[in-house]
Amino acid sequence: MSEIKHLFHIAAPREKVYEALTTIKGLSGWWTTQATGECKQGGVIQFRFGSLGNDMKVISMKKDEWVQWECIAGPEDWVGTRLTFQLNNCEGKTRVRFEHAGWKNANDFFAGCTFTWGRYMESLRRLCQTGKGEAFGSEGYRQ
Amino acid sequence: MSEIKHLFHIAAPREKVYEALTTIKGLSGWWTTQATGECKQGGVIQFRFGSLGNDMKVISMKKDEWVQWECIAGPEDWVGTRLTFQLNNCEGKTRVRFEHAGWKNANDFFAGCTFTWGRYMESLRRLCQTGKGEAFGSEGYRQ
Repeated sequence: MSEIKHLFHIAAPREKVYEALTTIKGLSGWWTTQATGECKQGGVIQFRFGSLGNDMKVISMKKDEWVQWECIAGPEDWVGTRLTFQLNNCEGKTRVRFEHAGWKNANDFFAGCTFTWGRYMESLRRLCQTGKGEAFGSEGYRQ
Repeated sequence: MSEIKHLFHIAAPREKVYEALTTIKGLSGWWTTQATGECKQGGVIQFRFGSLGNDMKVISMKKDEWVQWECIAGPEDWVGTRLTFQLNNCEGKTRVRFEHAGWKNANDFFAGCTFTWGRYMESLRRLCQTGKGEAFGSEGYRQ
């Protein structure tokens, strides 16, 4: 099993980052404008990118500390994988540990997702710091 | 041993991407404005980020195809690691396979570098596509 891990810091309070990860408004601001569904524990969130997309089930969450999803539909390599966002205070910033775990192979798609997750983590950072993210489908999305 | 892998595509010719990876002008445009040294095979390139930095020895290169460095000075976890940029044509774009291999541990620093490499790979992409990168020390660098 392989996992993608990104660690980074956001100059914004933990509460703000948690909100960006656990509300449709927040998720629409940094990942894709086409996000719908239920962000509570046990709920399913649909993320769409034009004709592509994935469904995430919220399997664990603790306010201002973490949220964890399981991918229940989407790219074959993603189904059954788990995604965790863990938040800590760190020298006046919020430290984010993002992990996408349970990959069967560290293949080209894995390397492509490592890059793309980095772009979206940067989008999350910008949303929390400046109010403007770079979600798929938004004005700020970088071609 | 662990490795960081990013795969992405740049809407620019391979020659242009290769130039950005093998000249001081190019490297200064996407990684750090404080880049000096010799980009030829066997040469050493110094990359500085304020008081921090690293030295890379060019151990292998083939025009428009690949360049490989070995880190010979810098953060303890980096010394002895190898960095490869491999270029291919792919549907009118340049596909880049970036690998930073030879890490002893996939620790927090590894996860932090995964994120930061993603930002600099995006900077390389933007330099080649728009002429403006987001190198450390440049106007475009994102705080």
